[in-house]
Amino acid sequence: MIDLNADLGEGFGPWRLGDDLALMSVITSANVACGFHAGDPLILRRTCTAAVERGVVIGAQVSYRDLAGFGRREMDVAAEELTAEVLYQIAALDGIARAEGGRVRYVKPHGALYNRIVRDPVQAEAVAAAVTAYDPSLPVLTLPGSVLHEVTDLTIVHECFADRAYTPAGTLVSRREPGAVIHDVERVTRRALRMAVDGVVEAVDGTEVRLDARSICVHGDTPGAVELARSVRETLEKAGVTVESFA
Amino acid sequence: MIDLNADLGEGFGPWRLGDDLALMSVITSANVACGFHAGDPLILRRTCTAAVERGVVIGAQVSYRDLAGFGRREMDVAAEELTAEVLYQIAALDGIARAEGGRVRYVKPHGALYNRIVRDPVQAEAVAAAVTAYDPSLPVLTLPGSVLHEVTDLTIVHECFADRAYTPAGTLVSRREPGAVIHDVERVTRRALRMAVDGVVEAVDGTEVRLDARSICVHGDTPGAVELARSVRETLEKAGVTVESFA
Amino acid sequence: MIDLNADLGEGFGPWRLGDDLALMSVITSANVACGFHAGDPLILRRTCTAAVERGVVIGAQVSYRDLAGFGRREMDVAAEELTAEVLYQIAALDGIARAEGGRVRYVKPHGALYNRIVRDPVQAEAVAAAVTAYDPSLPVLTLPGSVLHEVTDLTIVHECFADRAYTPAGTLVSRREPGAVIHDVERVTRRALRMAVDGVVEAVDGTEVRLDARSICVHGDTPGAVELARSVRETLEKAGVTVESFA
Amino acid sequence: MIDLNADLGEGFGPWRLGDDLALMSVITSANVACGFHAGDPLILRRTCTAAVERGVVIGAQVSYRDLAGFGRREMDVAAEELTAEVLYQIAALDGIARAEGGRVRYVKPHGALYNRIVRDPVQAEAVAAAVTAYDPSLPVLTLPGSVLHEVTDLTIVHECFADRAYTPAGTLVSRREPGAVIHDVERVTRRALRMAVDGVVEAVDGTEVRLDARSICVHGDTPGAVELARSVRETLEKAGVTVESFA
Repeated sequence: MIDLNADLGEGFGPWRLGDDLALMSVITSANVACGFHAGDPLILRRTCTAAVERGVVIGAQVSYRDLAGFGRREMDVAAEELTAEVLYQIAALDGIARAEGGRVRYVKPHGALYNRIVRDPVQAEAVAAAVTAYDPSLPVLTLPGSVLHEVTDLTIVHECFADRAYTPAGTLVSRREPGAVIHDVERVTRRALRMAVDGVVEAVDGTEVRLDARSICVHGDTPGAVELARSVRETLEKAGVTVESFA
Repeated sequence: MIDLNADLGEGFGPWRLGDDLALMSVITSANVACGFHAGDPLILRRTCTAAVERGVVIGAQVSYRDLAGFGRREMDVAAEELTAEVLYQIAALDGIARAEGGRVRYVKPHGALYNRIVRDPVQAEAVAAAVTAYDPSLPVLTLPGSVLHEVTDLTIVHECFADRAYTPAGTLVSRREPGAVIHDVERVTRRALRMAVDGVVEAVDGTEVRLDARSICVHGDTPGAVELARSVRETLEKAGVTVESFA
Repeated sequence: MIDLNADLGEGFGPWRLGDDLALMSVITSANVACGFHAGDPLILRRTCTAAVERGVVIGAQVSYRDLAGFGRREMDVAAEELTAEVLYQIAALDGIARAEGGRVRYVKPHGALYNRIVRDPVQAEAVAAAVTAYDPSLPVLTLPGSVLHEVTDLTIVHECFADRAYTPAGTLVSRREPGAVIHDVERVTRRALRMAVDGVVEAVDGTEVRLDARSICVHGDTPGAVELARSVRETLEKAGVTVESFA
Repeated sequence: MIDLNADLGEGFGPWRLGDDLALMSVITSANVACGFHAGDPLILRRTCTAAVERGVVIGAQVSYRDLAGFGRREMDVAAEELTAEVLYQIAALDGIARAEGGRVRYVKPHGALYNRIVRDPVQAEAVAAAVTAYDPSLPVLTLPGSVLHEVTDLTIVHECFADRAYTPAGTLVSRREPGAVIHDVERVTRRALRMAVDGVVEAVDGTEVRLDARSICVHGDTPGAVELARSVRETLEKAGVTVESFA
């Protein structure tokens, strides 16, 4: 059993990113932008409507307040402020989701915040405090090995990336390295299958790394991304893997 | 029985407006900014904490998205977008309020949006749609005579202004007219008493106008404002009026 | 002799709108967004670099401060504030243009501000005051019949739209009316030619309307837009019309 | 000869910070906010008007784009983007200053950016590239010991802080340490005098540290700040020090 998650609702005002509707026919969990790195209220609402119609589970893709940088730049936000900002975002999206007959069922930090809370216990705890304050039953989607484990009792769900190269230590190869992103459809699909069935990935040195991920993250904002995601899903289902949300 | 409401939480980042804590010891209903004209998430949270501690009822002071203009400039926002924006704001504040042991118990549009929905049925309906989608039991605080009455079944609560001059038709004299704002403490206090006890105000031509308001709006961002509000409350209580929230 | 202008640099952060580089090989004047409705500083800089390389004249596409609404919503900005905002935008873009070896050579208000100053003398004068304060030799691109004529001594340049239907009075048919936008390439091209050669357009009732426009506005953000623009330019040049900036 | 500089124009929309007009009667250089951490265009314009009237030199107080955090949070902005952002801010303020008969005569980075470029050569070079692109004759105001020296040929002007404790190495004691900020008027005034006359400050361990600063930074946003600044200026002038801008 595996979940497929993707980032959605990442437009703003007149701008769009990716083909949300196509992607929603493939994934089981939608990380919906909450307005701080992308996503105005109308986009949030339309994304929630579409997700509810298709039975896709809604998660809050919370972020630093950084529209110009799309939440991709680390920020030294004070813990108390970060907690309030994350709480604000979850609540706003959940209110919109409920108005459409759904609700927020998990939280996935976005971009620089996602990476930061893997290693920074202060910001990790600040994010966890927001989730706990809003609804302590909400799981948080993160990387295996995150310090989040050490600072909270929240349910933590691991995800992996079929199109990213892994180090033998199980971390992602930096995007600045050659070969960090895998574009070959067949290879990505094969990796996704091993991740789902065996819980492992082949690292850059040929060794096998245990991942034990409950969700695979797919992308929607690059050419061919939706086709790639569809190929992953079809291959998983043909192999008898149940593609289903963790939430 | 009368309610005293005031705008709170109207700072942003390093900036503050008015003496929120002092005002909270006088009023019964706090119109808390929701982040679109003022109010960052940390300010919202601290304001909710203080309101819950003092037993002050929390309302969502929803606004156009206009930080630079403090929500005071009319905007031709499309109805669908305005609904989503108002829904987003109510939900965000309510999530924060709940985390502090309170909740949003009414909605009061702010500034230009407040004035617009008195006469524009399209925007009035858009605001009403947001409240209905979030929680149809929430009352909306507005002026008597608003077109809101004609476009929604929501509970509508009327407010009046003890420090503003009224026309014989029961509308506010424009701030651009001389005498539109009354500064004399004793006179304001006397007007508040008549509004609460008799449900009337003396208009600029000396005639009496029926108001039937359930709440009196007091201000906190001008010199002497808190003292004025305190004087109003004390006078009302001495006269046997129960000062209590409508929500 | 005619000018072809188009809106450029209208992305923000991770988002893009239209194919700027392709469009720049067709047009003679680039209305570059200045950051208030679109356009972050890096996009502005790259757009100016490309314009200078191609010999395309740079104009400041000034706007209301409304990123979420893309400057398309009228705002009741006070005159003094609007003047400061327009001045800020022209200066910011001009500094960037100069760093790339170019400079701002005209001003074209964007979206709702463009339409507003055609009929509102207060905002028209506020915009004119900003241009005058920055550089009174800069021309302003607007519609024929704008009240701008009545409130300023600035040079005013008229533009027309080959793909928009005109009323017999010479105003644009509202986009809400059927047939307001003409999509047929051949028909648009023919209209552009008449506009450039004869200074007239055929209105919706078949009558001819005098336009005397020095510039034709083409669009870049719809499918086929660049091809349409290219067709217009080629047809004009084949007919012996010199396609050249007015600035 | 010494300069007194202070941060000005740091309001936004309805909000204000400090008593700008009072401070302007004391200082010789105004670090005017440019809109990214504070300062809307109208505030910028009014601040420039007042500075020109009083003969106070105008500097561009450039910042990260972070209104909610008042530019006080470090951001990993890419170099190319930071250069464009700083260029945009200098140009915008200079255009406004020129419209008022002044001009930007120096650049002082604000908050987290100020601290970052003391030690980060990449961001230091990015800021320097912006100043160079706009006007290579503009000096940059920074701390002694900044890496800015190593990455640019721009004129660099040092400043010091009379109300801050110094380490024996000549760096500021962190605000988190006790005694980091000195509040005693007489003591601050005496330190300012030694800084101006002898070019030294007494560090926390009692040793003397050479500063060779051409400017003393005074603050305007705390109670008694303007009086403190005035006391510093009067003491300097009585001691025969010429208080004059470096630009």
